Amino acid sequence: MTPPRTVEEHAETIARLVEPLLAGGTTERLPLAEAAGRVTAAAVRSDVDLPLFRNSQMDGYAVRSSDIRNVPVALEVSGDIPAGHTVPVILTPGTALRIMTGAPVPSGADTIVPVEDTDLVLGRDDDLRGAVVTIGRSRRPGEFVRERGSDLRRGDVLVEAGVRLAARHLAALAAAGVEAVEVRQLLRVGILTTGAELVSAEKGSAERGTDGTPAGFGQVFDANGIALAALVEESGAVVSVRTATSDDHDEFERALMDAVGASDLVVTSGGISKGAYEVVREVLQPHGAEVVTVAMQPGGPQATAVVAGVPVLSFPGNPVSTQVSFTVFLRDLLRASAGLAAAGVETAQLAAELRSVVGKRQFLRGRRLPDGTVEQVAGPSSHLVAAMARADVLIDVPAETETLAAGDDVTVWTL
Amino acid sequence: MTPPRTVEEHAETIARLVEPLLAGGTTERLPLAEAAGRVTAAAVRSDVDLPLFRNSQMDGYAVRSSDIRNVPVALEVSGDIPAGHTVPVILTPGTALRIMTGAPVPSGADTIVPVEDTDLVLGRDDDLRGAVVTIGRSRRPGEFVRERGSDLRRGDVLVEAGVRLAARHLAALAAAGVEAVEVRQLLRVGILTTGAELVSAEKGSAERGTDGTPAGFGQVFDANGIALAALVEESGAVVSVRTATSDDHDEFERALMDAVGASDLVVTSGGISKGAYEVVREVLQPHGAEVVTVAMQPGGPQATAVVAGVPVLSFPGNPVSTQVSFTVFLRDLLRASAGLAAAGVETAQLAAELRSVVGKRQFLRGRRLPDGTVEQVAGPSSHLVAAMARADVLIDVPAETETLAAGDDVTVWTL
Repeated sequence: MTPPRTVEEHAETIARLVEPLLAGGTTERLPLAEAAGRVTAAAVRSDVDLPLFRNSQMDGYAVRSSDIRNVPVALEVSGDIPAGHTVPVILTPGTALRIMTGAPVPSGADTIVPVEDTDLVLGRDDDLRGAVVTIGRSRRPGEFVRERGSDLRRGDVLVEAGVRLAARHLAALAAAGVEAVEVRQLLRVGILTTGAELVSAEKGSAERGTDGTPAGFGQVFDANGIALAALVEESGAVVSVRTATSDDHDEFERALMDAVGASDLVVTSGGISKGAYEVVREVLQPHGAEVVTVAMQPGGPQATAVVAGVPVLSFPGNPVSTQVSFTVFLRDLLRASAGLAAAGVETAQLAAELRSVVGKRQFLRGRRLPDGTVEQVAGPSSHLVAAMARADVLIDVPAETETLAAGDDVTVWTL
Repeated sequence: MTPPRTVEEHAETIARLVEPLLAGGTTERLPLAEAAGRVTAAAVRSDVDLPLFRNSQMDGYAVRSSDIRNVPVALEVSGDIPAGHTVPVILTPGTALRIMTGAPVPSGADTIVPVEDTDLVLGRDDDLRGAVVTIGRSRRPGEFVRERGSDLRRGDVLVEAGVRLAARHLAALAAAGVEAVEVRQLLRVGILTTGAELVSAEKGSAERGTDGTPAGFGQVFDANGIALAALVEESGAVVSVRTATSDDHDEFERALMDAVGASDLVVTSGGISKGAYEVVREVLQPHGAEVVTVAMQPGGPQATAVVAGVPVLSFPGNPVSTQVSFTVFLRDLLRASAGLAAAGVETAQLAAELRSVVGKRQFLRGRRLPDGTVEQVAGPSSHLVAAMARADVLIDVPAETETLAAGDDVTVWTL
């Protein structure tokens, strides 16, 4: 029996196992429309200048600035350049060309006069022939002209490597005509929940007793499969396999080998404590598993192993223990892999006195009150799965602390 | 010409149009496994007690506390109750039953003795017949027994209405045997981008010139369709329709009616300023659209309408203007509908002096530096779509402000 580990020591063990997955990893090429939320595998450079061509910043008239030095001045409107006009146009000196925002600035023009500075607002179907526009204000060369390449030069980086693609990145990539982008593959996490007592409500397969309980006396509904799946996805990874097994050795071993074959990382719940039917411990130990006690509550029994090159993290099976273990040990590693910021760990004040157990770091379920303080939700016991649904933080109480007073600062983990 | 609106006034107009969608709305029943991230339409009550039955909190021995009042005491092991044991068991007074965590506590037993307090650690296949366990520590009645209903009573609320379902909620629902849950339907947002100059790079349909530019001189790649789609999804809504049209009146009107028929809300970009080819303005005005100028930059021209009962929000078409308009006017409304917290608006210090334009509230693109200060990224012009990809905040400069000094506090909107 090894002495209990601290939370920090076990977190380091898990980080050592998981971090190689986060840095390296395979990549895939995705069309832009499927790449939202994914992380770039390499910097993306532009094949084009942005803007692609010299264009107008305003609806108005393209002129030579030298023709509007003395205002007011009347200029013949020699033509019209709508946005999307695909034929290059040359400005006849001493005239004006009506132009729309985004349309290519004609050769010979160096200034756009906004329509507000003129006396001539023409509609879509008006005949421009013979029209004369009077311009009331002079403009400097280059005013309201967007020069080609003024946003980005061909060859410049559009999006750096390691960036989670949000709307603004996709907009820049799309604007530069990028059709597809190389992104990191999502981390594939296999989920195995164990326990002979577990039946699944989700599939509608459980036979029910007349009072709504599972038909089988002594059976409980599996909460850990769906909780781990949601936690994995909230953390930006993807569930590769999700299997519930009994505590039969061969059944679990087959499920483990299937999961390992399909996953970058496998998470198990249950079967690692000191009981007589601890299937995860029994199957993992021949693979060199470290089965340890971590000085924390909930979440004491923990194990780690590497099976066929794939890290396996084993959490205890009480639903609260499973969720707390994931939150404390794995959440931020997965989030980092997905380019997500670490979930918040911050300081808050306690709303009321709180008692803890000396010798184990407690992760009590708590909730934030409107005044920003936090209070404990229900008791510390790890089977209180319904109480945990009312929590929005874990209150992190150091191992050496026995009581905390109202107003004391505590560390809280946002759920 | 109406006088310019303030940002607050236009935000109120949009909120009045959109808020009815957020509160009411249709609901749907989803299997638990598909309900992650969705918002409960009503409180979910439990059909069962949790725990479902009185069970053991420890691996150990179920006994009568009165039999272990004087320790050490040797008790015959009269049987074995593994987790998942589905036959009720009765404890013979004066004996102990081996029991695993989560297994039903036998009738007659009122205490669990943890295996650590005994001399008898039996393996899975050990023969219990005739075994005697010596118990070294007395325990109070009820110790390590989890009473039926101690977490939640039948009829109690498992998850309140209006809760975005995260792992801990799904775990509680699954534990109570809930198979499906009534959730709000996702808000369906239709997206229409307009502009005769736009071609799409995403579909690979654009013919390219030899230098990588679109084949057509004067054409640009549409950035707004993908940006709005990503913004809608980041905000917890779903894209119902996404169409790019030219500035042809009938083409846009058909696309609008299709979008309105399939959506709770329609967002358009482009076609609402003062030019001659403003298709969105032209089509929406007969529907009673309010076409306004908002005293902001980027994002000045804005319009709102209700078409066939569906709110239509029209943003200007420059890619930065579109993204800023969505962020300022719509993001937090959609997030509220999806049960997501408002995206952060906070105060930061400027890293360097900054100049602004008096009379218009500026939303300058900025980024956070490692020391927590923010600096402007590139210029204020609304065509700088690549520069916006380097930003992670909008720096919100009040309309009356012309210059801000390094160290001054500014409001920043997190992108």
